Amino acid sequence: MAAAFPEIEKIRYEGPKSKNPLAFRWYNPDEVIEGKTMAEHLRFSVVYWHTFRGTGSDPFGPGTMLRPWDDGSESVENAIRRVKVAFEFIEKLGAPFYAFHDRDVAPEGATLRESHKNFDAVAKVLKDEQDRTGIKLLWGTANLFSNPRFMHGAATSSHADVFAYGAAQVKKCLEVTKALGGENYVFWGGREGYQNLLNTDLKRELDHLAKFFHMAVDYAKKIGFTGQFLIEPKPKEPTKHQYDSDAAACLNFLRSYDLLPYFKLNLETNHATLAGHTMMHELEYAGMQGALGSIDANTGDLLLGWDTDQFPTNLYLTTECMLAILKWGGMGAGGVNFDAKVRRESFEPIDLFYAHIGGMDAFARGLKIAAEMRADGEFTKFVKDRYSTWDSGIGAEIESGKATFETLEAYMLEKGEISPHKSGRQEMLENLFNRYF
Amino acid sequence: MAAAFPEIEKIRYEGPKSKNPLAFRWYNPDEVIEGKTMAEHLRFSVVYWHTFRGTGSDPFGPGTMLRPWDDGSESVENAIRRVKVAFEFIEKLGAPFYAFHDRDVAPEGATLRESHKNFDAVAKVLKDEQDRTGIKLLWGTANLFSNPRFMHGAATSSHADVFAYGAAQVKKCLEVTKALGGENYVFWGGREGYQNLLNTDLKRELDHLAKFFHMAVDYAKKIGFTGQFLIEPKPKEPTKHQYDSDAAACLNFLRSYDLLPYFKLNLETNHATLAGHTMMHELEYAGMQGALGSIDANTGDLLLGWDTDQFPTNLYLTTECMLAILKWGGMGAGGVNFDAKVRRESFEPIDLFYAHIGGMDAFARGLKIAAEMRADGEFTKFVKDRYSTWDSGIGAEIESGKATFETLEAYMLEKGEISPHKSGRQEMLENLFNRYF
Amino acid sequence: MAAAFPEIEKIRYEGPKSKNPLAFRWYNPDEVIEGKTMAEHLRFSVVYWHTFRGTGSDPFGPGTMLRPWDDGSESVENAIRRVKVAFEFIEKLGAPFYAFHDRDVAPEGATLRESHKNFDAVAKVLKDEQDRTGIKLLWGTANLFSNPRFMHGAATSSHADVFAYGAAQVKKCLEVTKALGGENYVFWGGREGYQNLLNTDLKRELDHLAKFFHMAVDYAKKIGFTGQFLIEPKPKEPTKHQYDSDAAACLNFLRSYDLLPYFKLNLETNHATLAGHTMMHELEYAGMQGALGSIDANTGDLLLGWDTDQFPTNLYLTTECMLAILKWGGMGAGGVNFDAKVRRESFEPIDLFYAHIGGMDAFARGLKIAAEMRADGEFTKFVKDRYSTWDSGIGAEIESGKATFETLEAYMLEKGEISPHKSGRQEMLENLFNRYF
Amino acid sequence: MAAAFPEIEKIRYEGPKSKNPLAFRWYNPDEVIEGKTMAEHLRFSVVYWHTFRGTGSDPFGPGTMLRPWDDGSESVENAIRRVKVAFEFIEKLGAPFYAFHDRDVAPEGATLRESHKNFDAVAKVLKDEQDRTGIKLLWGTANLFSNPRFMHGAATSSHADVFAYGAAQVKKCLEVTKALGGENYVFWGGREGYQNLLNTDLKRELDHLAKFFHMAVDYAKKIGFTGQFLIEPKPKEPTKHQYDSDAAACLNFLRSYDLLPYFKLNLETNHATLAGHTMMHELEYAGMQGALGSIDANTGDLLLGWDTDQFPTNLYLTTECMLAILKWGGMGAGGVNFDAKVRRESFEPIDLFYAHIGGMDAFARGLKIAAEMRADGEFTKFVKDRYSTWDSGIGAEIESGKATFETLEAYMLEKGEISPHKSGRQEMLENLFNRYF
Repeated sequence: MAAAFPEIEKIRYEGPKSKNPLAFRWYNPDEVIEGKTMAEHLRFSVVYWHTFRGTGSDPFGPGTMLRPWDDGSESVENAIRRVKVAFEFIEKLGAPFYAFHDRDVAPEGATLRESHKNFDAVAKVLKDEQDRTGIKLLWGTANLFSNPRFMHGAATSSHADVFAYGAAQVKKCLEVTKALGGENYVFWGGREGYQNLLNTDLKRELDHLAKFFHMAVDYAKKIGFTGQFLIEPKPKEPTKHQYDSDAAACLNFLRSYDLLPYFKLNLETNHATLAGHTMMHELEYAGMQGALGSIDANTGDLLLGWDTDQFPTNLYLTTECMLAILKWGGMGAGGVNFDAKVRRESFEPIDLFYAHIGGMDAFARGLKIAAEMRADGEFTKFVKDRYSTWDSGIGAEIESGKATFETLEAYMLEKGEISPHKSGRQEMLENLFNRYF
Repeated sequence: MAAAFPEIEKIRYEGPKSKNPLAFRWYNPDEVIEGKTMAEHLRFSVVYWHTFRGTGSDPFGPGTMLRPWDDGSESVENAIRRVKVAFEFIEKLGAPFYAFHDRDVAPEGATLRESHKNFDAVAKVLKDEQDRTGIKLLWGTANLFSNPRFMHGAATSSHADVFAYGAAQVKKCLEVTKALGGENYVFWGGREGYQNLLNTDLKRELDHLAKFFHMAVDYAKKIGFTGQFLIEPKPKEPTKHQYDSDAAACLNFLRSYDLLPYFKLNLETNHATLAGHTMMHELEYAGMQGALGSIDANTGDLLLGWDTDQFPTNLYLTTECMLAILKWGGMGAGGVNFDAKVRRESFEPIDLFYAHIGGMDAFARGLKIAAEMRADGEFTKFVKDRYSTWDSGIGAEIESGKATFETLEAYMLEKGEISPHKSGRQEMLENLFNRYF
Repeated sequence: MAAAFPEIEKIRYEGPKSKNPLAFRWYNPDEVIEGKTMAEHLRFSVVYWHTFRGTGSDPFGPGTMLRPWDDGSESVENAIRRVKVAFEFIEKLGAPFYAFHDRDVAPEGATLRESHKNFDAVAKVLKDEQDRTGIKLLWGTANLFSNPRFMHGAATSSHADVFAYGAAQVKKCLEVTKALGGENYVFWGGREGYQNLLNTDLKRELDHLAKFFHMAVDYAKKIGFTGQFLIEPKPKEPTKHQYDSDAAACLNFLRSYDLLPYFKLNLETNHATLAGHTMMHELEYAGMQGALGSIDANTGDLLLGWDTDQFPTNLYLTTECMLAILKWGGMGAGGVNFDAKVRRESFEPIDLFYAHIGGMDAFARGLKIAAEMRADGEFTKFVKDRYSTWDSGIGAEIESGKATFETLEAYMLEKGEISPHKSGRQEMLENLFNRYF
Repeated sequence: MAAAFPEIEKIRYEGPKSKNPLAFRWYNPDEVIEGKTMAEHLRFSVVYWHTFRGTGSDPFGPGTMLRPWDDGSESVENAIRRVKVAFEFIEKLGAPFYAFHDRDVAPEGATLRESHKNFDAVAKVLKDEQDRTGIKLLWGTANLFSNPRFMHGAATSSHADVFAYGAAQVKKCLEVTKALGGENYVFWGGREGYQNLLNTDLKRELDHLAKFFHMAVDYAKKIGFTGQFLIEPKPKEPTKHQYDSDAAACLNFLRSYDLLPYFKLNLETNHATLAGHTMMHELEYAGMQGALGSIDANTGDLLLGWDTDQFPTNLYLTTECMLAILKWGGMGAGGVNFDAKVRRESFEPIDLFYAHIGGMDAFARGLKIAAEMRADGEFTKFVKDRYSTWDSGIGAEIESGKATFETLEAYMLEKGEISPHKSGRQEMLENLFNRYF
């Protein structure tokens, strides 16, 4: 099979002065930062769906993408050809990981049995290509939302058969993910949510969802899948209300159904902002609860109200992400997964390279800046000083559990008023942030 | 003391045909609906802050309100005069409850001790007026956000003294709430949140917040306060990020710090919509977790991004609220508390009557419509039918815990495809909803 | 050809007490309101695209709609079969109008010439069906956004060929619209806008757009098409920025390029709210400038950030629309065009009836309520009184042009302060509004 | 009078390597860029309202700001003391301009006559300080929104007296602005808008607004004020709908009332984003219509729905602003006016320095980057190439006015299909943008 990108060599690090748009200016995989290589920190992953299955269609028109290797058919042969192109791309790009939905690597068959068979056929080629290239599977997941059978949800469908169908599909996908050495398994909610409360039994649906996750946990144990389970928050789209709205909603769900020990979160920038949060907030919030699992690296347009899944190039964003990730000790088995798609107008194959190179460089630079900030320690010191009243005296008494409302009232009646405040210095800190750019 | 509203008689129910803007057209307190009177269902409450302390100021100009009884001073005498006007108003309106912040009933003194004293002096008059009129206290709460000392938060302040000050203030407010027979005690987050993550230790702040709530629970036990503790979700404003963002964030916090047994939620429409949720969603979500405590009845303008706290008049909204409240068995010790303010341009005293009458009528009519819908049972039946596959067969096996991924896969491999779906019928249900108006 | 909806009779008016979901409760076409029949006021129109070409696909999955008469092919035969089903539907529904895009009635061919030919073939059947049923064409329009050739816009494309292609398509569509007696011709912006300013020459694109409209005006004159030209505002989606953002942007464009005499606006609720405006605002704003042409009747979900195109059932919305439309003398050649689609989960053919019946009833009821409000005159009188200071004295001097800054300063220096204000009474007016429901 | 900032020296340029938070790292006033000094390009201006009158109050609490020189009184003496502090600050900062509202430099008196007198008294000191320091007045404006008399608007008030009052106030303010050599005069809408359409006569209000502006134009001519008139768009806040919603709404208004020759726009970032636009969009849109007058430099938080007026530090934003400003030939008499306020928690006087230094450096750096991009010409060339089909052939025929729908149809029927498209390359361009940071 001929190369799909014959004109592209392996993308190399050329340093900040390079003007070559097909080189890295910041991502230098072997460069060591805080004791680990960039590659180890960032664990970049290419997504199969947007990058190899995205057509550029939108609600106002069909696809635009030029993908000469793809005959548009739903055959296994075409699927296998795509696998080879995918690995050529990922290898030339130099990303160590990829991620997939069952239905985007292999075509759905006429029956579930045939779908399983198709999946097995393609998985074999994925395995071969992984072995050939050393590229690894960051995570697998099952698409439980595209087929019309999932119109009312999957585990939360009003129709019990659909739960069963979803269970069968996830079972298979867990097996394949295990076989391919997948380091995580992700649940994105798809259509788990509602369009309208008037026709919805909220509690019953959430009870079913918990049942589904417990079955997944049980089955993973049974087959010895030891990858990390991840849930991915998103507040809306495709449903009006997605049950996994944000990190808080996910964690409350996991806690209330005794699932917390088995799951972490896969956080996505564009989902965070659709929920009204910054990505840094979601990272900090998950991190402090030990639930930071992985990230879907992209960005939205804050003036648009839907998931635009753009490639992340904003250095403020990537620096903030890396600050939070470094602070909470990294992402473990997770990685920086580009759940991002080229614009409908960027329809040429080479745009896939530009897009990923830009995202990887933005994260590499964010990592470097974040590490530099941490080494300088100015932010850390500022925060530590800001809370210094908690390190002794009345603050320490409160933190240690010695204080009560009564002792605190006595303290304050005696003192009369608090000792003077210090400025929060937001503007100075924002200026300091800019100093690193 | 002369009447503040001499021209206003007690507001009476005159029925739907009345064109008297100072009469109820729908709120008929003694009318029995589903076995309880309207008064018992709705438990209307007038808020002290907006209604008796609101000046009409906004970020672009000072107050406009004409309040002839208020000399504008921060004296205890003025505060006591206000109490009398408040009770005249609430009595004429016919609301059975009110709610307050410590600092809006009594002026803050030069020291904490003096503030306590002022509060006691006014509380005595509140007690007298309660006794005279039979009006009851729905809930008390402490204002831990207006005074500059709370600029960085109260329990989550970077400054330990502020935690102590807040503790002293809540201690006192709990005592007064108990003395006045308050049926609940509310925590609205105020400035518990952050403006900027660069200067914030998120985890330390949330740990402190949990400590604060545990102290409150302990102190309530100690003094025998048996009212319900309530937390009130809000996602932003005044801080960029409020820790109690929405029902999910509150419940996750309560669960993770072992506070769930002691708290329910006080849900507000305008806070729900600022968080991207419908009020009905928040009610259903809290209801299904046994956490529906009370509501702050108002409405926002969905095209504006701040808390407008308008009086609720939209009948779709009030019907949806009452549907959810009736479904989850009512609000117990909670009530329909009008956390709403007249517009800055509605500056005449009589506008306070128009506003509350409109809100009470809207909720009364929402209650009647909701009860009629429930009596007809068309929505309930539709939902029950929609989930009927869960009542037997594979659905019942899943719900009962008998099914596993393996049995479900076997079921679906055999069946091949799900049995056909039914339409979600959103449009038909929306038409049916309209039939009740 | 067998009937597509054999079980559906013509939808009839049965009055408010009817519980028949397939009857009108409010839309009584011959009922006279303010001197015209409901049918004349409302001029309901069914859209071809959503109703006969919508598949229920969304960005997360393919279509769900059950349309047994449609074989899914892009053949002219299939297109003609659809026409017959469409007219069966519209006739049974009792809507007097319909509207189409060229490409949704007839399939695009391999060449422009073939597309023209297909369009002619289908237009002939449309004409026959119009003649048979008396159903009329409210407006035609050309789809200049779906085909990938329009990826960078049509008249505002960076590629001149695309302008030419669009011109050829609109030329043909104008001819067909004329032949079918279309009463208007609509331009919705499609992809006329930009995704990114970095690659866009804003001024050049807008200059081209004006050129395009001038050519359309010229050609209409030439062929004697006397229908009304309409532009349809929308702020975003599919592009990040749509040039025709809102009524103000459209009118500024029309004025600045001397196009104002030839165009009015086709206003859509969901586009108004995406632009941050109420529909009533857009109607008032267009109305006062003589530019109110027609409406696309639908509704969005204000908590979602994309164009959901739901059927309008909210009676506040429809009443506000009809208040504005009646105030500005109706819509002339325009109508109430249901640019709305059934939800993806409402996939059965009968849902199309439920949806349109609900929308028609909601507008009929809005019309009745608005007319009743106007007959009572309470709102009109309130507004007139509120501005009464402008009817004489200093107000009249200002309005008549006699006053200057100097005379006004003299007046106010003498007077010292304004005479007292009156309350804006928003709450009372909102209560009054509710009295009509 | 003692210095208000005795510890602060004049802020100096120390270059990018400086870690001194009280030095400029990028703003080097005399550095020449594209033939003009940075000072000439940027024309930085400090606002009187936020910086010298802002208290830090918000809707949830009173002021926090430590301003030892301000006794909080509304006396002329206090006002004069503030003037001196203001000029000390502006001089030490090195900003060449300032801007004010009449009522923030001088206290409102008991009568209009007294207000005039107070204003004169303070204006004299402003003049002296201007002469002493060389600092100039960028623009004056009248506050027609804070005083309760403006609750229903000023020129658009329902009460004619208020129009007269506003006229008198603007007359005076024009005189003072002229006397102080103000280079512009700004109208920000204040409460010119509505809270509710039910009580509003939209057309009458806009007619009045146009009258008001015409009177201002006439009076300026009469007194020989030759500064530029500017209107400042904002979509909402304090009113639900501000008439000057965005650049398009302003320009449509100006065109429709024959005011376009006399006005340009003062664009503000946070207002642009509240209207759903990027600041760069508003700048381009105004620029292409010859209406780019000046900018209010700040930033909002795109996840918050109100005007946060934060200091601009985002380098993407400032670079985009400067790209647009340079492209359209600069701002003429306008400038970069910091309509921004320190956060409520940044209450120390020194925070005012940090904030302005950060904003000035961010704009200086944005200017340098923008100029570098322009010098390199890669973006310009890309755009030029992208539209190259318009420079000859069919494109040139269209632009020159030779083409018609008929010639274009003939062209395309012959050609059959457009020649192939080129990618929009958004990702590559975003990467290229990052190369400059």
